[in-house]
Amino acid sequence: MKAEIITIGDELLIGQVIDTNSAWMAGQLSLIGIKVAQITSISDSREHILTAIKEAESRVDVILMTGGLGPTRDDITKNTLCDYFGTKLVFNQESFENIERIFRMRGYNITLLNKAQAEVPENCTPLLNVNGTAPGMWFEQNGKIYASMPGVPFEMKALMEDHILPRLQAISSTTIVHRTILTQGVGESFLAAKIEAWETALPKHIKLAYLPQPGIVRLRLTGSGRDKAELESDINANTDALYELISEHIFGEGDDSLELIVGNMLKQHNYTMATAESCTGGYIAHLITGIAGSSDYFKGSVVAYSNEIKENVLGVSPKTIEKYGAVSEETVFEMAAGIIRQFNVNCAISVSGIAGPDGGTVEKPVGTTWVCVLTPKGAETRKFTFGEHRGRNIRRAALAALDMLRKQLG
Amino acid sequence: MKAEIITIGDELLIGQVIDTNSAWMAGQLSLIGIKVAQITSISDSREHILTAIKEAESRVDVILMTGGLGPTRDDITKNTLCDYFGTKLVFNQESFENIERIFRMRGYNITLLNKAQAEVPENCTPLLNVNGTAPGMWFEQNGKIYASMPGVPFEMKALMEDHILPRLQAISSTTIVHRTILTQGVGESFLAAKIEAWETALPKHIKLAYLPQPGIVRLRLTGSGRDKAELESDINANTDALYELISEHIFGEGDDSLELIVGNMLKQHNYTMATAESCTGGYIAHLITGIAGSSDYFKGSVVAYSNEIKENVLGVSPKTIEKYGAVSEETVFEMAAGIIRQFNVNCAISVSGIAGPDGGTVEKPVGTTWVCVLTPKGAETRKFTFGEHRGRNIRRAALAALDMLRKQLG
Repeated sequence: MKAEIITIGDELLIGQVIDTNSAWMAGQLSLIGIKVAQITSISDSREHILTAIKEAESRVDVILMTGGLGPTRDDITKNTLCDYFGTKLVFNQESFENIERIFRMRGYNITLLNKAQAEVPENCTPLLNVNGTAPGMWFEQNGKIYASMPGVPFEMKALMEDHILPRLQAISSTTIVHRTILTQGVGESFLAAKIEAWETALPKHIKLAYLPQPGIVRLRLTGSGRDKAELESDINANTDALYELISEHIFGEGDDSLELIVGNMLKQHNYTMATAESCTGGYIAHLITGIAGSSDYFKGSVVAYSNEIKENVLGVSPKTIEKYGAVSEETVFEMAAGIIRQFNVNCAISVSGIAGPDGGTVEKPVGTTWVCVLTPKGAETRKFTFGEHRGRNIRRAALAALDMLRKQLG
Repeated sequence: MKAEIITIGDELLIGQVIDTNSAWMAGQLSLIGIKVAQITSISDSREHILTAIKEAESRVDVILMTGGLGPTRDDITKNTLCDYFGTKLVFNQESFENIERIFRMRGYNITLLNKAQAEVPENCTPLLNVNGTAPGMWFEQNGKIYASMPGVPFEMKALMEDHILPRLQAISSTTIVHRTILTQGVGESFLAAKIEAWETALPKHIKLAYLPQPGIVRLRLTGSGRDKAELESDINANTDALYELISEHIFGEGDDSLELIVGNMLKQHNYTMATAESCTGGYIAHLITGIAGSSDYFKGSVVAYSNEIKENVLGVSPKTIEKYGAVSEETVFEMAAGIIRQFNVNCAISVSGIAGPDGGTVEKPVGTTWVCVLTPKGAETRKFTFGEHRGRNIRRAALAALDMLRKQLG
């Protein structure tokens, strides 16, 4: 089965909004074995919508549309679909009750415009939109499938997950199983070289995708076939073999994040922690406190952006800084020891480095970063040499430090 | 003039990569008065590329393509364009010298595959790509314009800015002038109500766009016409009138950021600063230290994620916390005073709030946030009530605090 995604809305064509819906939908479709042939963004224009659907219909079996379903005049998708299918709008009671429920919740009165949102083309199956007032719509005609959804991302996602993907999966004869392994601190090409033989030996029905982000590479295994149990067992066996090759780089799977994993480990051990940050400037604390409930184990941080603060607040010896420099193994060790003392915690991360663009020397170029991790399980200091880009250096240093803590607690 | 953007690459169709290029290009085109009629993403397939160009050609005057220009087998755009225009590839000396320059810089030897990147269709004008080895290409045929660029964002952007936009602007008879005003801490609908009469009175050749982000709303004025000086004077007069209406919400223009503006003010005054953060968890320090050179004025931060740290490190009185709570005017004031004392700085921001999702009460619901700003110019404490979303509460609190500091220093 092949699909085309059509996103409708003037805001996409003046660059006001980045179309993130399409990538998400394409990712979901590819996970159930449906190949996306084209993604098309067009304006709220009747003629253009009709042309786009006609062109798509000549290429694919499934056409998914988002946008143009709001209550105002510009939102013309529904009427245009009536024209396309030669049908008319009819009132749908279930959709109206959903609108009533939402307005009651928000404490507003329903206007005539909102009531009109409960009207749908006569030939469609309305799909319940629990997060909004515009129902999703499912059409089948001449062996092709058409679905229309609102463009608001969380409304679209719920409609896809609750209705459209299960319906498509029921029609598609292919079963898809996937598993995503998360690695930290190692580049795509280095990983590729390390797992080359394993990758070449993968059976034909299992595909590997590299999904890189700054500091993190995700490896997604996708198996497609008929027997779900068999696919799962194949994927799991191959994942086990992958763990044997690169276990030191793997920190989690699926939707895991380092800050969440580390947080759970700290809770398990009943440990408390704090950070002493120089070049990362509070970014590690920001990542950790992004997790709801982190105050159970995270006590705080000292961002020491000058030598005086390292000395006066964290208790780093002026002699250490004079002799070894602020970016040194000795300094990060004293920073970590200092924050443990000052904040009365078990565990500490400390970081000092040259984020750039200035401040580099021949001996310590921009990107040079020292990290120290102290916990009841041990002490480790490590030097990293990242790149030239300030923002990316900060991100990579933070992830590397969290991963060192994870390994020490594990 | 109307345009279509065609982005080529399998990675877009499996959802691996979000197409951010198109929105940026569409935004740039709309600023020079060219309307984007459609954005199309397709796979690296010869047939599909040919169909997409043909369909686009029937709709628009300008077709901009990105992607498929790398050195490997999958990258077939160049050969497909030769087929489309009925021409052949020829060697281009200037492009080759650019490739040589880039390889010299990286210390690599040129392979045959890279040398082939200097070949371009005979009927095109090659465009120098200073950031990469694949040249841009400009075609004109039967009154239509076609341009092809690499999909790597910073290569595409430089080609657009240096070559394609100036060429399109020279052809387009319309002159466009724009000015973007940045506001903080006030919602789109509130702003719209406040400037309604002003907006209605705007002359026809000046358009207003609201570009909202969490915590920040950008107001973009775009004037289109023939006489540049006249347009600029019209835009400036209307902007002056806008400042009179909402000056207390405006913090900058264009590409300004609050952390950059505040940093420049601190430098000008020769002030130093530090932050004492509870609910923002180091995010304000992270924003400030994202600016290169911020160590000139930023000395650091204490993230006090527990009452003990507020008391022991920042010197907040236990009685204050007991009597008024950690989220109170009294506590943020003592936090700010404490960090000024501890870090020996002139200026401080302190924040304490309930980021959520837990910890709210009837009196202090999730989103309740106190901010204090102390500088040699004054002292201010303020209470905010943000929303229910943890990440957005952290972002909005940080921006609100930076804006309070900006106003006090201004």
